[in-house]
Amino acid sequence: MAKVITLGFLGCGNIGGGVYHLLTDMHGEILKRENIDIRIKSALVKSIAEARSDVPKDIMTEHADEVLKDPDIDIICEFMGGEQPAASFMQQALENGKTVVTANKMALALNWHRLQAAAVGHHAGLYYEASVGGVIPVIRSLTVSLNADEIDQVMGIVNGTTNYILTQMSQQGRSYTDVLAEAQQLGLAEPNPTADVEGYDAAYKLSILSSIAFHTRVTYAKIHREGITGITPDDIAYGREMGYTLKLLAIGKRSGNSIEVRVHPTFLPNEHPLARVDGSLNAIYIHGKYCQDMMLQGRGAGDKPTASAICGDILYAACHMDTPTVPSFDNTAETDPAISFTDNWNCRYFVRLDAADTPGVLGSVASAFSARSISIASLLQRPSKEKGRAQIILITHEANEQAVQETISSLNAELVDVKSMIRVEC
Amino acid sequence: MAKVITLGFLGCGNIGGGVYHLLTDMHGEILKRENIDIRIKSALVKSIAEARSDVPKDIMTEHADEVLKDPDIDIICEFMGGEQPAASFMQQALENGKTVVTANKMALALNWHRLQAAAVGHHAGLYYEASVGGVIPVIRSLTVSLNADEIDQVMGIVNGTTNYILTQMSQQGRSYTDVLAEAQQLGLAEPNPTADVEGYDAAYKLSILSSIAFHTRVTYAKIHREGITGITPDDIAYGREMGYTLKLLAIGKRSGNSIEVRVHPTFLPNEHPLARVDGSLNAIYIHGKYCQDMMLQGRGAGDKPTASAICGDILYAACHMDTPTVPSFDNTAETDPAISFTDNWNCRYFVRLDAADTPGVLGSVASAFSARSISIASLLQRPSKEKGRAQIILITHEANEQAVQETISSLNAELVDVKSMIRVEC
Repeated sequence: MAKVITLGFLGCGNIGGGVYHLLTDMHGEILKRENIDIRIKSALVKSIAEARSDVPKDIMTEHADEVLKDPDIDIICEFMGGEQPAASFMQQALENGKTVVTANKMALALNWHRLQAAAVGHHAGLYYEASVGGVIPVIRSLTVSLNADEIDQVMGIVNGTTNYILTQMSQQGRSYTDVLAEAQQLGLAEPNPTADVEGYDAAYKLSILSSIAFHTRVTYAKIHREGITGITPDDIAYGREMGYTLKLLAIGKRSGNSIEVRVHPTFLPNEHPLARVDGSLNAIYIHGKYCQDMMLQGRGAGDKPTASAICGDILYAACHMDTPTVPSFDNTAETDPAISFTDNWNCRYFVRLDAADTPGVLGSVASAFSARSISIASLLQRPSKEKGRAQIILITHEANEQAVQETISSLNAELVDVKSMIRVEC
Repeated sequence: MAKVITLGFLGCGNIGGGVYHLLTDMHGEILKRENIDIRIKSALVKSIAEARSDVPKDIMTEHADEVLKDPDIDIICEFMGGEQPAASFMQQALENGKTVVTANKMALALNWHRLQAAAVGHHAGLYYEASVGGVIPVIRSLTVSLNADEIDQVMGIVNGTTNYILTQMSQQGRSYTDVLAEAQQLGLAEPNPTADVEGYDAAYKLSILSSIAFHTRVTYAKIHREGITGITPDDIAYGREMGYTLKLLAIGKRSGNSIEVRVHPTFLPNEHPLARVDGSLNAIYIHGKYCQDMMLQGRGAGDKPTASAICGDILYAACHMDTPTVPSFDNTAETDPAISFTDNWNCRYFVRLDAADTPGVLGSVASAFSARSISIASLLQRPSKEKGRAQIILITHEANEQAVQETISSLNAELVDVKSMIRVEC
């Protein structure tokens, strides 16, 4: 006799529809593989009349309690997006002893402590593979496969929209606003693109990724966040000339009890495996004491890849109803006081200056950097379009964030206009 | 109170030593993460006196039964390598109800049916993440994360030795024998390199990979296998000129109930993600109905990365002693009769010919291909070093293996000398 597992959906748009179709398509195969008969009993929607999904309307309901409190339902799959009411619905489901599967990075990153406490307290499972990197199995790889290792670095392209925009800007030399408008027309960027282009989405994902990689709670508030709206084709072109590719990266590093977590545009050497991850692909680079370097890449969005990851979670949950999995690190609302978070990291820096083309300017720029012990690795000077001005582009050796910021502030604004400062990882 | 889990090792060389050191180094951290106190009680070695590992001699034994039959031991970790006695020791361990963790692709590929039957019959676990791709979490990704998906393709660089040799040949234009000798000096190739360079190692790994990807037993005997010993710098150079990179690939494809499994040198377009995986790195490209395209890359060998994967398995096993995992597909000794295995696949072909430089030869070559409906996608003709001869290099559009083999046999040997035929994937 097959084990019957009954699902309830919270939300039934693009992702919910994708999961419905996968489970319908693969029902017989899943029965054969795991002897589990997965049934979808109900799906919460705002309005049945206005539901655009082709999921049968007879399983839809407009009443959350019909899903959350239904004693038949074993696993709640949350596809609502946004923090609320998704987070409180998930918490209620867990408190009712139901296992939760979600792809909602925002609700999870901001409410992890509540959700985890509810899961542990009620012996329920909490699974979220699709919340970071879409179908890329990075959550399970970190929490299970690398669980005996000591991870010191995660670095990811975790937002497909910004990677698409930067790739187009890079390949076609077009402006940010131009490519954004096109991405919006193609449905690759939201009408309000803030969450993607300002790095909020990547920061929620980094909160999750670094928490599990470093086995300690990394709250969203600890993350330094910058978006891509200030990036110009000039930055990308000069970077390329110097051998670098621009990506919006979510970076987490741990050294002893010190952690740095930051989302910002980043130049990578062209040979870095992440530099070659183009378009809407996602990828996560991992480094650890034992595993050394590793990279996982795949589709970060789309209904089918996301459904694959979610249904992998559903099937694992269904096979392990009696031994549910929840994250095992300390789950307090705040970060562990033993851990320090630094905004004053070391990395390399790309700095682009527009300077007066007069004798001594290059010398004064060089002096400003050397005065703070910042060593310049490569430098490029070009005539500016504007007469009497020059473009100076330099890349430093490894330097301290605060020292670089101070150097930039110290430059005489009349002589030197700082056009951009972009961090460089390698 | 922490749960005590006791390990016994079978073999204690490079890998066993790596696992010992990781577990010693990470003991406190693992206790903190999972509340599990992992202890290593004994390690079987051939000769304690001659053991070169720096593992303490007081846990070493020369008697297999002291490990296999010790009632204190929960998990047996097999690091012996080779088919026997590793396979029969693992079977005995499983029959004694002990969970087994192994990295031994040969013993697993050839004895899977026996090992799986013993594991299921005695409620023991069987874990083998490190058997394919070293630290790359491809086994767990396929068996868990992608368990609800329908995988139609796995394509992997799963042998670091041959990837190192081909990378050096490609980057430096050196001959196979020259690079092999250097790799042997550097310890990157065995004194007897047959298992690597003839593709046996890759074929064992493909047997495991395609069995779990396609949810059916793919025995080693079904795999078409060719090594890299016949590859010349000329092949690599002409391929590069046409935009391709040469790799030894393990390829598994499934379409309906038809499966093709093959290990052979393969040209990939330079843009393919696997084309950029150089040196001793491993990588596995996966394609499925829902997940679409995905790639996982990392260290395929080395004591630390291998130890990371093995200890991930050990820790998962330790956390799930009551619900052990074993592969869920049919585990008979032979392949499922409903599945057909084909040696007559379709792909593209690179063919290099040394031909008499006389009028009509190119026409007769072209005719031989078109007579079997094989369409030529690109062609390059060059004067040969030998007077009166020409090099003709062509790449076909997708064509049938048998038709290509027949075409090659049909060419007039006096006029046309077939130097190489290399398959092309994209």
